[in-house]
Order: sequence, then C-alpha cells, then structure tokens
Amino acid sequence: LDPDKKTPDHHVPRDPRLIRLTGVHPFNVEAPLSDLYNEGFLTSPELFYVRNHGAVPEVKDEDIPDWEFTVEGLVENPLKLTLRELLAEYDQVTCPITLVCAGNRRKEQNQVRKTKGFSWGAAGVSTALFTGVVMADVLKRARPRKGARYVCMEGADKLPNGYYGTSVKLNWVMDPERGMMLAHMMNGEMLRPDHGKPLRVVIPGQIGGRSVKWLKKITITDVPSDNWYHIYDNRVLPTSVSPEESANNPAWWRDERYAIYDLSTNSAIAYPAHEEQLCVVGAPENYRVKGYAYGGGGRRVTRVEVSIDKGKTWRLGKIDYAEDRYREAGEHHLFGGTLDMTWRESSFCWCFWNIDVPVAELKDAKDILVRAMDESMNVQPRDMYWSVLGMMNNPWYRITISHENDYLRFEHPTQPALMPGGWMERVKNAGGNLMNGYWGEKIDGEDAEQPVKEAATEVRMTKDGLDRPVTIDELRKHDSEKEPWFVVNGEVYDGTPFLNEHPGGAQSIVSAAGMDGSDEFMAIRKYQKSLRIADWHAESMKTARQLKL
Amino acid sequence: LDPDKKTPDHHVPRDPRLIRLTGVHPFNVEAPLSDLYNEGFLTSPELFYVRNHGAVPEVKDEDIPDWEFTVEGLVENPLKLTLRELLAEYDQVTCPITLVCAGNRRKEQNQVRKTKGFSWGAAGVSTALFTGVVMADVLKRARPRKGARYVCMEGADKLPNGYYGTSVKLNWVMDPERGMMLAHMMNGEMLRPDHGKPLRVVIPGQIGGRSVKWLKKITITDVPSDNWYHIYDNRVLPTSVSPEESANNPAWWRDERYAIYDLSTNSAIAYPAHEEQLCVVGAPENYRVKGYAYGGGGRRVTRVEVSIDKGKTWRLGKIDYAEDRYREAGEHHLFGGTLDMTWRESSFCWCFWNIDVPVAELKDAKDILVRAMDESMNVQPRDMYWSVLGMMNNPWYRITISHENDYLRFEHPTQPALMPGGWMERVKNAGGNLMNGYWGEKIDGEDAEQPVKEAATEVRMTKDGLDRPVTIDELRKHDSEKEPWFVVNGEVYDGTPFLNEHPGGAQSIVSAAGMDGSDEFMAIRKYQKSLRIADWHAESMKTARQLKL
Repeated sequence: LDPDKKTPDHHVPRDPRLIRLTGVHPFNVEAPLSDLYNEGFLTSPELFYVRNHGAVPEVKDEDIPDWEFTVEGLVENPLKLTLRELLAEYDQVTCPITLVCAGNRRKEQNQVRKTKGFSWGAAGVSTALFTGVVMADVLKRARPRKGARYVCMEGADKLPNGYYGTSVKLNWVMDPERGMMLAHMMNGEMLRPDHGKPLRVVIPGQIGGRSVKWLKKITITDVPSDNWYHIYDNRVLPTSVSPEESANNPAWWRDERYAIYDLSTNSAIAYPAHEEQLCVVGAPENYRVKGYAYGGGGRRVTRVEVSIDKGKTWRLGKIDYAEDRYREAGEHHLFGGTLDMTWRESSFCWCFWNIDVPVAELKDAKDILVRAMDESMNVQPRDMYWSVLGMMNNPWYRITISHENDYLRFEHPTQPALMPGGWMERVKNAGGNLMNGYWGEKIDGEDAEQPVKEAATEVRMTKDGLDRPVTIDELRKHDSEKEPWFVVNGEVYDGTPFLNEHPGGAQSIVSAAGMDGSDEFMAIRKYQKSLRIADWHAESMKTARQLKL
Repeated sequence: LDPDKKTPDHHVPRDPRLIRLTGVHPFNVEAPLSDLYNEGFLTSPELFYVRNHGAVPEVKDEDIPDWEFTVEGLVENPLKLTLRELLAEYDQVTCPITLVCAGNRRKEQNQVRKTKGFSWGAAGVSTALFTGVVMADVLKRARPRKGARYVCMEGADKLPNGYYGTSVKLNWVMDPERGMMLAHMMNGEMLRPDHGKPLRVVIPGQIGGRSVKWLKKITITDVPSDNWYHIYDNRVLPTSVSPEESANNPAWWRDERYAIYDLSTNSAIAYPAHEEQLCVVGAPENYRVKGYAYGGGGRRVTRVEVSIDKGKTWRLGKIDYAEDRYREAGEHHLFGGTLDMTWRESSFCWCFWNIDVPVAELKDAKDILVRAMDESMNVQPRDMYWSVLGMMNNPWYRITISHENDYLRFEHPTQPALMPGGWMERVKNAGGNLMNGYWGEKIDGEDAEQPVKEAATEVRMTKDGLDRPVTIDELRKHDSEKEPWFVVNGEVYDGTPFLNEHPGGAQSIVSAAGMDGSDEFMAIRKYQKSLRIADWHAESMKTARQLKL
C-alpha cells in the first residue's frame, strides 16, 4: 500500500498524513493545516513540507562521510570538500529557521486563474533547528575574487532540464545577519532524504527554492545563475504577463528583477479550521482565533490584525515569537553546534498569533480577515497579485462564516491540491468575480460578468486514425520523465514532446506519468492554446480507445 | 516681504516656491509636485523638502571648522571631533541619496480622519549628492563595547521637549550596504542651514526623521533612544489605536515594534498634474503618464504598474534609475569625495517611471492608478493604513478623470497643507466613505453612511468672564514656544499648558504662535475631546473680544 512503491522514491519513508500536491511523484506535500499548527513552533520531520522537482538522490549511510561538493568559479582557492571535512574543519552552528515555499497559498491564485504551478494550500511552511556550518566560513576559505557577485548552487537531483540549481547574492551570504548555512542536521538528526540528505543549503528569510538540497556544487560568478530552474522558476512576473506572453517571450524570464528572494509578509488562520462548526448555544464568551505569520529577509512581524467587518476596523492580535526563547537563552550548545542568537537583529522564524473574539460578535459577522505587518511596515494587501507562476500569494487571509441554525460554520479560501471546498470555489461557481477587490461579492456599478464557461473552450486532443488499445502494464512502463505517458478521459497520451516545450510544463507531465491525469489536465486545459500544445499533441500523441484504469 | 522676518529663522534664505505646511514657522515645506518632478533626479537645495521641528541653529561661517560633536556611551574610546578633524582624518565619500519624510502623502490620511500630523502632499521627497564620511569609520575608531546595539544621535535644535534626537541599530550603521554617513556637503556645496549646516547624519533608505541635522552627539547604547522625539514621533501605531487611546496609554509609544525605519514602497503620479486639462480634439495618440517611485531599506523598485480600470488590469511602466549612471561610471571622485557604487547591491534613490496611454482609452477611463513593487515583492496596497501619526501612507496613488466637453480634467487626491482641492475632499463632502476599499464610491450592500457633520461637534473654548482686549503687538510678543499665544476665530488663546500635554501637540501650537491659527485649529478640532484639551483650555486660556488681525 506504499504509494511510492513504483516510483524512484521507493527508498524514502513518508508520513501518510501528508497531502500530495502533484500526484504520486515527484513528492510535493504539505501537512493538513491544523496538524501543522498543532505541532507548534518546530515542525517534526514527518510533517515538514516537501518540494521535490524529481526523484530523491539515494545515499547509502556508509557513503555519507564521503559526500563531496566543490566551491569553484571566481575564487582564488577552489575547494573540494567532503562532509567529513566540513564537520571536522569548520565551526558547527545550530539555528531555528522557518522555510517557506514560494508557492505557499497558491491554490488561491489557481482559483482566480490557473497558474503554471500546482496548488499549495497554506501549509507550505515549516520550521526546524538546522545544524551545520556558516556558509560564509566556507566561501572565505575559497577567497572570492574581485568582480564576484553571485553564489550559484547545484544539487544532485537530476531533472529533465539538468540538475536543480539557483543563486543568491554573494554579499548576502557574507552578511552574518542573513544566517545562510550549509546544514546536515535537522532537529538533531541527520537530514531526511526529502530534505537534502546528507547536505543542503539553508537560506533563512528567502523562499525555499533558494535552499538547494543534496548540495554538490557552489560556483561563484559575476552574473546570476543560468540554471534552467533559476530562470524559469521562482519568479513573480508582472500581473499583465499572460501564460501565452510568458511562453512567447523568454525575455520576461531572463529579467532578474522578477526573481524572488525575500519572502513576503504573510499570515494564515489555523483556527477556526476549514469546516469547523461552532455551536453558539452554550458557547464560551470568546472564541480564540489563531494562526501563524512570517516576514521576509529576516524582518520581523510586528503586528497581526484581525477584522470581522470586511476590513473596516481591525483589532490587534497577540504575537508569540518562540524564536526569542532561543535568543534569550544566550549562547549555548545544541546538537553539536553553537546556538548564539544574542547578537543577531534579524528574525528567521514564523510566529504564532491569537485573538479572542466575542462569540456574540462572530454571530453577526460574515467573515474573519487577518493581515500581518513587518518591521519595515510592509503589510499584506487586500488584493491578490496574480502572476503566471502563482507565487508569493499573500493577500489578507479570509475565512467565511455561514450561519446554520445554532451553528456557525467556517470555510477557508481553499483546500490544497485538487481537494474540493473553500469559499473561493463556491463564489466562483456562483459567478462571482474573485478579483473585484471585494472577494467576489457584488459591487454596485460593476459590469456583470459571466461565470467562466469551461465547457465552451473544449479542445480536441485526439488524432484521427490512431486507435490502438494500450494495456495498463504498457502504460505503467511509461511512468518517468523518459517517454511519459498519461491518461486523460480514457485516452492515452505521450507527453515526451511536451517536456522541453515550456517552463513549468515538464513537471506536470512527468508527475502524471503512468497514471490518470484527467483532473490535473482538465485544470490546465484553459490555456492549452496559449501554451501551443494544440500543435504538438496532434503531431505526437498516440490515442487509444477507452482504456479503463 | 520676507515671511521669516519675525521668526528665529530670519537668517535663513528660502525659496518662495516652497509650500509652507505649518504656517510660517517652524519651516516645514515641500515644492509643488510638478516643480519637484521637473527638476529631475537631483533636487536643487532651493526645492529640497524641509522638516524642521523648531528654529534653525545659526552657525557663523568662521565657526564652522570648530563645530564639535561627541561619540560617547558604550565605547572604549570616546571621541570629541571637530568638523575640521572629520575632514582631515577620515576618507571622504560622495553618494546620491533620496530622503523622504515619513509624512509624505499624509494629507490623504488627514482627509480620511485627522491625524496628529500636518498635511504633506506627495512632494516630501528629494534627492541630493551628499559628501561626508562613512559613519561606521567614526564608530570603529570609538570601538563600541560588548552589548552595544543602538546608535543615538542628537542635533543642536533645542525644542520644547529637548534636543531633537533618535536612534538606529548599530549593526545597520556598520553595514556598508546601508551606506549611513555623516555629511557636510550637498550637491557640492556646504549644507544649507535648513538641511543641517554644518553637519548632519544621512541614513539612506530610512525615513528622513532618522537623519539628524546639526549633529552634536552620538551615544552608543544597549537600548533605543529615549529622546522624546524618538518615542513620540515617527511611529505607525496599530490602526485600531485612536488619538484618545494613544494619549491615554503611553505604552503604545514605547513599543519599539511600531517605530519606523525603512521607507515603504511608494509612488506618485506627477503628470497629469493636478487640474491639468487635456483637449481630446487633435490630441496626440498617446498621453505619457509619469511620476516617481521609491523603495525602502536599499531595496530597489522592480516594477511600476498603472491601471485605468480601477485595478482590474495593470500595464507595466518603464523605469529609469538615474542612480545607476553613477554606479556604471565606476569609481571616481566628485566634490572631494570618492564615489564608488560598483560594489554596492543596495539602491538609495528614487526612480522615475512613465507609460504611454492611448488618449482614446483615457477618454473611457474614470481614473489612473499607480503602484510600485520592490525587489522583495512588497507592493503598494489598495488600502490606506490609517494611523494616529498618519505616516508611511502608501496606497495606490490615484488621480481621477472628469470629462467636460472636449476636455479631460485630472484631479490628484489632495493638495498640500490647507490648500483646497483634490478628489478626496470632493468625495468626502459628497458623503462618500473614503475607506470602503473603493475610494468612496458606493458599494452595493454597504450600510449608507452619513457625511461627517463637523458642525455638530462644536466645542466651546471660551471662558466666561474673561474679556480682555489684546493688541496685535502684545500678541506678537508671544510668538515662540515660551508662552505661545494664538488666535482662533478672533479669540486669543494661551497655548502654554498645551505644550507638554500630548505628543504632536506642542509643535502645532508653537507653529501658530503669534498668529491666526484658525484654519489649523479648526482642522484638529474634531478630536479635541479625545485629546482632553477641553479641560485645559477652560483652566488656562485667556480670551479676548474680537481681535481682528
């Protein structure tokens, strides 16, 4: 019953509570939001979110000390280091750090308009105590040359477009306030395979995509990384750039201004949970609304505010920065590393907030909104900034309240992956315009908009004359990035030509390989034309009659 | 005809184009927005905005080299330095830096609800080439001790609550990417008196209030400054904190989390100018909309977007970072200092943006909106974050378009100071709720709100039995912070007891001293009760009959 039995990740143990966001493989998961929140400040490795682009590199325990990585490029002293040397020759430090996927809360964007990314809920965020070495210590030994400005990193995960890689600025790595490290332990034990075993980069305050796992190579350069995943992933293109425009004009992707580094200020409500019900008869005076918040670039969340009147008025929540307990403890040792945050001004972790709202007031309210502000006075906006990759989604987190007899029923905006539910889906299906600045509720004077009629944009994908039956065994042989086949509405397609066609596409094809991808495929069908796949499928797809799985 | 003839600033020459925001004195001014924009990247000293809390310290030219300041507190090596020594013993650097008042665009907040601050338009921002020494070089020589975390700075401007002073974090000062300096020249000449002659601090990327002028003292500490102006100014209290609540609970002011340092991402439209008219008959195909934008903390503006359909869709503007020309020029010398931005990743200056909009589309539009986003993906929000001091106002900048025969007429949100005009005033007077998330336009389902009836809140300020005529000469003797008298609606009041009553109040009283303050006073009358001034005026005000000025 192990879902990974047939995938290259069969060697990786995984917790069944995790919600898979891209089919079975690659492994991209988040915990149910309530479970994540209930774990508290530190997330256990079992529920820590995972963002894998492909198969997890397998390292035998006996080979771990010999795991090798290089530091090269614009340096006076190129290095080849083993993990053994890294442990023996460098000071070890331990630090609590929150990692967040740039796609956290992306499902909300996909509800507004399908992006080129899969549907994270609000649990693409987790915290651990990482142990390893200060990245700057390693680079200092390599001695960057004049003109060096970027630190490119590459992992061992081989993907359709090469090894995963990206870059950050050299001066960030050298800045102790930014706390960038090479980590080999998480919460006191060796990294789990999904989290970069045996060695990964950890970049606090920036999106998870910069924290390269299974680290093999560091290259110092004068320009940002030219890795395919650095260029075509982790960007917020201008909202005016459509999927079609982004596919036609690579210049949009090559503009480093749109690359994401610092996290955005963000927050979410954990309780009330989605579909939680509150009986108002005999209820206590107050209901405690609670959730998490985080800032970017080491900037601290300085306030969290809650509104139950659609943003007309706000009330101030209480904030708890558990990170401060480690700060207040002074310099000490933990898991073989020095933990000393006494001198550091920046904050790298999420915080928890709560506020008591009188149940009598909730009874009169239609929704609960939350927004956080950081120490630079960056406040979460009311409006979603939609973009092609659907990243950095951080509008006010809103849950709705419906009243059924003596019960209040709460609804979150979405549920992760393809799970149905949430007020966004409901509002959209009723013809509401989610982007009207009022959560799809009707605004006077606004032009009435028709609900999107998906059926009207049907694209014919089958090719005349092709009519060969495919057995399920034959299909399942095509379950990897090499000749991936997948099933949509009972027809079998070969996704191979699609792999290099456009950014973001390869992965969705590979993730459906060998399986029924009808749901995923129908969801992206809306902009098939813009992705020009109408051309290639007619050329290359092999159809088969009524293969029932 | 010199308006400063009777003020302590009579020795300071000033440009008549500057708009005075707090009566005649103290001198708080901005240029007309079009004039500011037309000056281009560098603002001439004549039009550079000024924020003075009191009288400008006067320094004779022959005394300038002997101007002295100290570095003390938690340092191994306390320093007493003259400007002569600063010039002789330290490397000199030159750098283009944009300064911005935390109150920039505050008039918009005052339209929504009167704050405790005066009404800046959108021209509280200016740029100059500053020459001086790197602040870290001076502090390194003083050798901060263990436990040192803050750098307190104090000026020579003596005010009702002591010398002006504030603090920033020590690690910021020591970080070369933050570029903090002690400057004595501006655009190649000695600082003007209004800008800190002969020595000031310049803190790039942070609000102007941290850049202490007329620098006399630097104190290294383990806690933030306890200067009155650090505590009771330059803060964004939670929006739920009313003026009354902030006056009653000093704890709000003492919470360092609400202190403002980094600027917020912001932008404004310069053209179309306020009340500009465009004849659509025979107009060129496109109108070029243009303006400025800036980010905070050295973060660069990476996109500027314009909408002419109320934010439904956005188009991307072109950005020009003139600052980059200095960067690209490599290391060179300017005004006796080294200008080298080749190694610096941060950006300290505003940028200009423009976009061509077809006149045919403007004819169908009701407004033009602009928003900027910085490299950390912080985007200006739709919603204003109102707070007691009205600072860091940065919602989308909106100008309205009205159609009169063959003309399009443009209106900015406000005009500075007490100048009438702007769509906010118009919408508000018509009963619109400016905070409904839709610029006061009616939203269906919203409860109808009554226009604020200011007349209904009349407060009786005169005291029975006091009926002494006051001559204009007698009045004018009371024109300073010592026993300030002022006139409201023909009655003379003594503002002395008000001076220490509440944060923000002293200055508005002093600025009206010896003059008719009716307009200013009526504007803040709304929350007189909350400020508890009803109590003190009855006790202490001396009234006089019908003194006509």
